[in-house]
Amino acid sequence: MSKPLVLPALTRFVSATAGRNMTTAAYVAVIVGVAMMTLLTVAPAYDAVPHWVDALLWACLAYFVFEWLVRVRHMRRQDKFWFYQLSSAGIVDAIGALAVPLALLAGIEPKTAWLLGVLWVLKVVPGIPGLRQLRRVLVVESGPLLSVLVIFLMVVFLASVAEYFLERDVQPQTFGSVPAALWWAVVTLTTTGYGDVVPITPLGRIVAAMVMISGLGVFGLWTGILATGFAAETRRDNFLRTWETVSKVPFFAHLGPAAIADVTQVLRTMDLPPRTMIIRKDTNGDCMYFVAAGEVEVDLPGRKVKLGEGAFFGEMALLGNAKRGASVSTSKVTKLLVLDLVDFRLLMARHPDLAETIDAEAKRRELENQ
Amino acid sequence: MSKPLVLPALTRFVSATAGRNMTTAAYVAVIVGVAMMTLLTVAPAYDAVPHWVDALLWACLAYFVFEWLVRVRHMRRQDKFWFYQLSSAGIVDAIGALAVPLALLAGIEPKTAWLLGVLWVLKVVPGIPGLRQLRRVLVVESGPLLSVLVIFLMVVFLASVAEYFLERDVQPQTFGSVPAALWWAVVTLTTTGYGDVVPITPLGRIVAAMVMISGLGVFGLWTGILATGFAAETRRDNFLRTWETVSKVPFFAHLGPAAIADVTQVLRTMDLPPRTMIIRKDTNGDCMYFVAAGEVEVDLPGRKVKLGEGAFFGEMALLGNAKRGASVSTSKVTKLLVLDLVDFRLLMARHPDLAETIDAEAKRRELENQ
Amino acid sequence: MSKPLVLPALTRFVSATAGRNMTTAAYVAVIVGVAMMTLLTVAPAYDAVPHWVDALLWACLAYFVFEWLVRVRHMRRQDKFWFYQLSSAGIVDAIGALAVPLALLAGIEPKTAWLLGVLWVLKVVPGIPGLRQLRRVLVVESGPLLSVLVIFLMVVFLASVAEYFLERDVQPQTFGSVPAALWWAVVTLTTTGYGDVVPITPLGRIVAAMVMISGLGVFGLWTGILATGFAAETRRDNFLRTWETVSKVPFFAHLGPAAIADVTQVLRTMDLPPRTMIIRKDTNGDCMYFVAAGEVEVDLPGRKVKLGEGAFFGEMALLGNAKRGASVSTSKVTKLLVLDLVDFRLLMARHPDLAETIDAEAKRRELENQ
Amino acid sequence: MSKPLVLPALTRFVSATAGRNMTTAAYVAVIVGVAMMTLLTVAPAYDAVPHWVDALLWACLAYFVFEWLVRVRHMRRQDKFWFYQLSSAGIVDAIGALAVPLALLAGIEPKTAWLLGVLWVLKVVPGIPGLRQLRRVLVVESGPLLSVLVIFLMVVFLASVAEYFLERDVQPQTFGSVPAALWWAVVTLTTTGYGDVVPITPLGRIVAAMVMISGLGVFGLWTGILATGFAAETRRDNFLRTWETVSKVPFFAHLGPAAIADVTQVLRTMDLPPRTMIIRKDTNGDCMYFVAAGEVEVDLPGRKVKLGEGAFFGEMALLGNAKRGASVSTSKVTKLLVLDLVDFRLLMARHPDLAETIDAEAKRRELENQ
Repeated sequence: MSKPLVLPALTRFVSATAGRNMTTAAYVAVIVGVAMMTLLTVAPAYDAVPHWVDALLWACLAYFVFEWLVRVRHMRRQDKFWFYQLSSAGIVDAIGALAVPLALLAGIEPKTAWLLGVLWVLKVVPGIPGLRQLRRVLVVESGPLLSVLVIFLMVVFLASVAEYFLERDVQPQTFGSVPAALWWAVVTLTTTGYGDVVPITPLGRIVAAMVMISGLGVFGLWTGILATGFAAETRRDNFLRTWETVSKVPFFAHLGPAAIADVTQVLRTMDLPPRTMIIRKDTNGDCMYFVAAGEVEVDLPGRKVKLGEGAFFGEMALLGNAKRGASVSTSKVTKLLVLDLVDFRLLMARHPDLAETIDAEAKRRELENQ
Repeated sequence: MSKPLVLPALTRFVSATAGRNMTTAAYVAVIVGVAMMTLLTVAPAYDAVPHWVDALLWACLAYFVFEWLVRVRHMRRQDKFWFYQLSSAGIVDAIGALAVPLALLAGIEPKTAWLLGVLWVLKVVPGIPGLRQLRRVLVVESGPLLSVLVIFLMVVFLASVAEYFLERDVQPQTFGSVPAALWWAVVTLTTTGYGDVVPITPLGRIVAAMVMISGLGVFGLWTGILATGFAAETRRDNFLRTWETVSKVPFFAHLGPAAIADVTQVLRTMDLPPRTMIIRKDTNGDCMYFVAAGEVEVDLPGRKVKLGEGAFFGEMALLGNAKRGASVSTSKVTKLLVLDLVDFRLLMARHPDLAETIDAEAKRRELENQ
Repeated sequence: MSKPLVLPALTRFVSATAGRNMTTAAYVAVIVGVAMMTLLTVAPAYDAVPHWVDALLWACLAYFVFEWLVRVRHMRRQDKFWFYQLSSAGIVDAIGALAVPLALLAGIEPKTAWLLGVLWVLKVVPGIPGLRQLRRVLVVESGPLLSVLVIFLMVVFLASVAEYFLERDVQPQTFGSVPAALWWAVVTLTTTGYGDVVPITPLGRIVAAMVMISGLGVFGLWTGILATGFAAETRRDNFLRTWETVSKVPFFAHLGPAAIADVTQVLRTMDLPPRTMIIRKDTNGDCMYFVAAGEVEVDLPGRKVKLGEGAFFGEMALLGNAKRGASVSTSKVTKLLVLDLVDFRLLMARHPDLAETIDAEAKRRELENQ
Repeated sequence: MSKPLVLPALTRFVSATAGRNMTTAAYVAVIVGVAMMTLLTVAPAYDAVPHWVDALLWACLAYFVFEWLVRVRHMRRQDKFWFYQLSSAGIVDAIGALAVPLALLAGIEPKTAWLLGVLWVLKVVPGIPGLRQLRRVLVVESGPLLSVLVIFLMVVFLASVAEYFLERDVQPQTFGSVPAALWWAVVTLTTTGYGDVVPITPLGRIVAAMVMISGLGVFGLWTGILATGFAAETRRDNFLRTWETVSKVPFFAHLGPAAIADVTQVLRTMDLPPRTMIIRKDTNGDCMYFVAAGEVEVDLPGRKVKLGEGAFFGEMALLGNAKRGASVSTSKVTKLLVLDLVDFRLLMARHPDLAETIDAEAKRRELENQ
């Protein structure tokens, strides 16, 4: 085979990550690369250690090119080349690998070409946790958001023509054309207010005051729309993530759909690494936990009890005893469902049968632990 | 007949659009017109191509005048002249057609007269999608919003007199009168902060700090009010648009009013052009669809099944099978009702009969497709 | 009697208004007074018409003194002098009447003494519509709002000492002391950003960047708290105002308390002057109305029907017929309860008996109008 | 014993406060200390009274050192030394006591060393009322907030490289390197807008305009997320605080869990010092009260009636009689549960038995008071 023999391990490692998330190595490369690119533009810093900066930049670039090539090969083998290359991850990978080399080949001065290294930050995008949620909010609320944007632009245009008319004779330097006035209008309506262009005639200032107050209004509308959308999306997202897990907990399995929907609405999921303390003895507790996956260890006096999938603990805190009776920690990677005191009470009120099951189990344990 | 013979087609086209929305031609005219008006004020750009700019401006104006005249004639024939002329669309059309010519006739210098072309952007207003919704929020919440505005003005007045008193001797140039201090107060309370007028005495700065913090407060109140109003309005708007469509879907027709109200609250409407892919095979799905109008095509292995008004599809994703079993695309302009996984589960819990119908239909299809 | 004989009518007029709201005369006096006070400080404007400005100022002052004296006399007769004088209205009246005269008597230069006229704007406070609502939000949410304020102050202090330390050697002029740095910190944390004091060292800029981002956070928390409080308050306020009116409408009188509470939650009250058009024939309707007080006139073909307290109209729009069948206008001062289409449907679903009553009445009318 | 004999009383006082909250003395010390530290940097002020400033600073420091030592001794005796020293309060106490002395010992110039006194403001943190609530919101919403922060940083980086590229030749002074452009980007994206660095090329201004509008978006998302989180947290917090108290009121004791959960959701707790007027006779009332702890005194004509734990009053206002019939004030430290008119009506509708109990008690009292 004609393939290089020194890289197979690394190649395997990279192809294993071709799925979606970024590896730690990629994060390091992005941070180092962007930092070096920044340093390149600071004359004194660069002149002190030019070779180091250059070397690190080339190393980062080499990493991104290598990563891209491995992923392309991997995807080709699975016949998903075009699927990958047209996905946002594929486009970002290709840009990260090709932008700087192509610029250098095109004869652009190196210091300028390396600026394209800033595009490496785009590789972070797929790893942002709540991005999907944010995008959904923006899509669902796109109608009203667009309306506000159009109103924004209309105010900007009307105000800048008015200001141009009012100020052009007094300040021909700064209000000498409508584009210059547009710059002022955007700076003012966003309440940025650089102060490089400021109306000085009385009428001009009155128009400006109205623009500023409109700015507050635009701000308020924008925020109001996003807050509304976000509230709906958070509720939806939480529900979806929890439903799946709830349906796997034996404890809830015998409940009817109405009760499951109610339970799902109030539980929160929590993923924990092994050896993490969940409950510390003698602290105050205000929630109980269900083990959705993994295993936890209850530290009872004299012995340790392991609780696996489907078990629950911490229910004492909800049944009147606020002090935690024992420490509990994870022994594996564990997914927990957290039931808050508040929601517990509302739930018990609506589903007395659920309350009885928890009560019975709690009494059984108390007897056992005596 | 004395009417011009070369324009009838165009005239018919414009009168057909006399209803409400803008045509693409009008959008182009607005954008070109405003761009040219802007260019007119940029000396180097204008001097390079003066004839082109002038010609395009006159062309846009001609279009708006023509459009207005056709609409007026059209409305007159239907005896709705005054209704149209006093509507916001009529006023905006008249302004767009008459403002510049009247200014030119009044002997105003052309470069200044053409500035009135900025009023053409107002023609976009009726076409803004969520405008009606925004207006309702502003009307419903006008009470509290007005209160905040009055408080805003009171703070502005009290602060500016205080600053005038504290700063007039030290900075007679910038704080030499109460109007000058008012300018400072508005710039500060909106947190714009140009920096052209800044207090320098210690007491003046303490007053200014309080004004800035009040600014945050005004901002917060404003946003809070708008967010509250918007949440209510969004809920209402969604309900109204959906109710109408739901009542036309046979599947829901036999439900009682309580169930219809519940269903309406959770469905979203979606309008799609023909040949749009709705579901792609093998992707993950989290919603089902009802066909409110139009037709969709399910791409089953070997054959294509058409589903018309009242049919539903994608229900498998909600009944436990997350992978989509077949691609679905529209074959006509189609209005769909989307039922989200979250809402589906809550709905099923409250209306078991609905669940049974969907379940039965799903089983029937599975048998059929084997 | 020793009382002046020329003023009795005016005196009676003012004492009649001693209750709570401001008269139009008082609004005019406030606006004229504050405008003249502003003009007083603009040298060219004042020098043009000095006598007019002085005369108007004295006239306003005279009005406020007179108003205050009449109110004091009126309250004294009712033995409520101290109650009035210690209420906010009484304090504001006294300040409006006494501040300027006392300052003049104390030998303060007239131009400065008249500046106290700005306090007249305080007289507007009791007339602000939603003020009580705003105050309740601020009181209920005072805990979290105060927390944010304390955090705000802590960030300001820590940041300004850090900046003072980092910038004092480079910019002794602007960062020469902690108070100077405090000024910078407030200007920055509120995102006002005058630009008169700007850090220039790299470390100073990093601290500044963190302060700005904290500023966004403070803003967000503040707004979030206020939005939450406002949503709760709006719901509460609406309920209270409506409950009282609903219980007086015969139509709802036979409903049980659960239904009344439900109805109250969705109705909005609306106060209208006489001869106001409520429904215009042939427009689209999406709400029905109940007459809580007053009278309306339905403009049927050929005759006019009057509907008094307890009647309802516009129900056709909610029962499937979106076009209004007749114009309706008020014939007296009228208080209406508005029932929105959305809420109507939800209400009907939960209270079928209410639906039947409305349906029966609607059918009866249709028969009658044939 | 070798311990100092003059300090035992003070020592006892401080150890009594070792629990959690700050004493008034500590607040005074923080305020005086920070004020003096500020004064130290203002040359004219300090030169006027140098000995006073120095003396007060040393006194504050002595207080904090003393307080820390006493607390350490106290905690040591209870074998909680490390628990205390690693808690946030312990760390803040240690910093307050040691930072300045260590800096002085390290040979740092006194004027600079005393600047560390600003860390004393951290001692206020544990006393902030709603801090725990704020922290919970930030924790629960950390996912989306972090997403927005990452997006913020990405926009900052991309925009600053773009501006550097566009502006570096025109303004080498201010846009001479990427870090300089980063400073501009942060100042702009937070809409602070100092105006010390402003793009002047047309393309640079277009990029800047987009950054400003993104700034509005980031702001809106941030606020939307926080508002959503805050609404959920406020509901939760209120419920928890009230549940505990409600369960102790005999009046509610016989209710089932569903009713108790309902009641808890609508009651608010209120803590009052003795001799506080709760209800003033003849004012309008819109809530009733339950005594959760303590005692109140009803001022009936001729005699005073005392109501202890579990009693309620003010119910007349909710049963149709808006004018308060008697004044009520606390006679001890009292914890009240407030039931709002709005919530009362909704509650009565859902729990008729509760309504009957209140009604019966109200009738009994009326008879008694005749």
